[in-house]
Amino acid sequence: MSSTIHFYFDFTSPYGYLAAMRIDQLAAKYAQQVEWHPILLGVIFKTTGTLPLVDVPLKGTYSLHDLKRSARFHAIPFQQPEHFPISTQNTARAMLWIANKLGEDSAIKFAKAAYQAYFVDGINIGEIEHVVQIANRLGFDGDTLANEISSPEIKAQLKAEVDAAQEQGVFGAPFVIIDGEPFWGFDRFDQIEALLKNGQI
Amino acid sequence: MSSTIHFYFDFTSPYGYLAAMRIDQLAAKYAQQVEWHPILLGVIFKTTGTLPLVDVPLKGTYSLHDLKRSARFHAIPFQQPEHFPISTQNTARAMLWIANKLGEDSAIKFAKAAYQAYFVDGINIGEIEHVVQIANRLGFDGDTLANEISSPEIKAQLKAEVDAAQEQGVFGAPFVIIDGEPFWGFDRFDQIEALLKNGQI
Repeated sequence: MSSTIHFYFDFTSPYGYLAAMRIDQLAAKYAQQVEWHPILLGVIFKTTGTLPLVDVPLKGTYSLHDLKRSARFHAIPFQQPEHFPISTQNTARAMLWIANKLGEDSAIKFAKAAYQAYFVDGINIGEIEHVVQIANRLGFDGDTLANEISSPEIKAQLKAEVDAAQEQGVFGAPFVIIDGEPFWGFDRFDQIEALLKNGQI
Repeated sequence: MSSTIHFYFDFTSPYGYLAAMRIDQLAAKYAQQVEWHPILLGVIFKTTGTLPLVDVPLKGTYSLHDLKRSARFHAIPFQQPEHFPISTQNTARAMLWIANKLGEDSAIKFAKAAYQAYFVDGINIGEIEHVVQIANRLGFDGDTLANEISSPEIKAQLKAEVDAAQEQGVFGAPFVIIDGEPFWGFDRFDQIEALLKNGQI
């Protein structure tokens, strides 16, 4: 079996962060490739009428507890950021810009660094100055990035990514699609592994 | 470690059914006891403003697919019932009546049989005639049950159960609480097992 693993995530999604810290490792175990797709949950939640998890009574409080516990259970560093949730257009556009200029591997490096800056160091990665710092730290040209990520081309590219995700039925994050088979949530990594291992689920 | 595993479920919850088919087995592995608590999600969802899963655009369609896949993954028989979701007051009241008259073990036998009648055989267990049939099949007195489950005492008992669950922070099903530690979803059985095994999570 050789299939692309399509991985959809929003930079403000904590379960997306947990998934991002594990997906390449899981794919590598079965010699598969991951395509990373930054999306905007804010746009998608308008379609589904979904509230951000933390805004739901009771469920919000539980989720904060569950996140810490789930991170611990999977041995992934995690601190709930003070600014949460945040708008992640700048971060997503920066990732697309890096992919265009420097290729997918650099874009994935940026995505992981941005996620860690947010969910480990508490840095507000929705703000462009922090996006630039992360890019610079990785050796990318943060100043040019800052000038170019608000271009009509990059805006249109992100909009197209979000539209494409919705057409695939993506309604939350993390979301994984392999050969048309959809998986919602970091919880489904056991079933994803079964599919990669056995070629069916 | 010796702790009671509090298991909250609604008879119309398919993930609750999957959990119900596995929780006693998991508890037995670590020599723990399970207390089964029937609840009414309809009442609880009014507090949280939650829609039944299948009524949420996109998420509903996905969930039906995920349920079948999850049942297969865990080797649990499952057929999505035609009547879904259903009102489960009668079923929950019947379980409480059996617990009062015949003890917890009989009540749990009834709960499992009712869940299987619904999610394997497609029987509408919200209807009292089917509740009576299931009770009779188990050797319980279905006719007396039918006469007594709408008594003010049983109604009050179920209301008290639902109120108590909400006070414990239960906002969905299946929900498990062990020594105050809350777990939402069949997805968390791996973390529940870690807690039972290690005494902490």
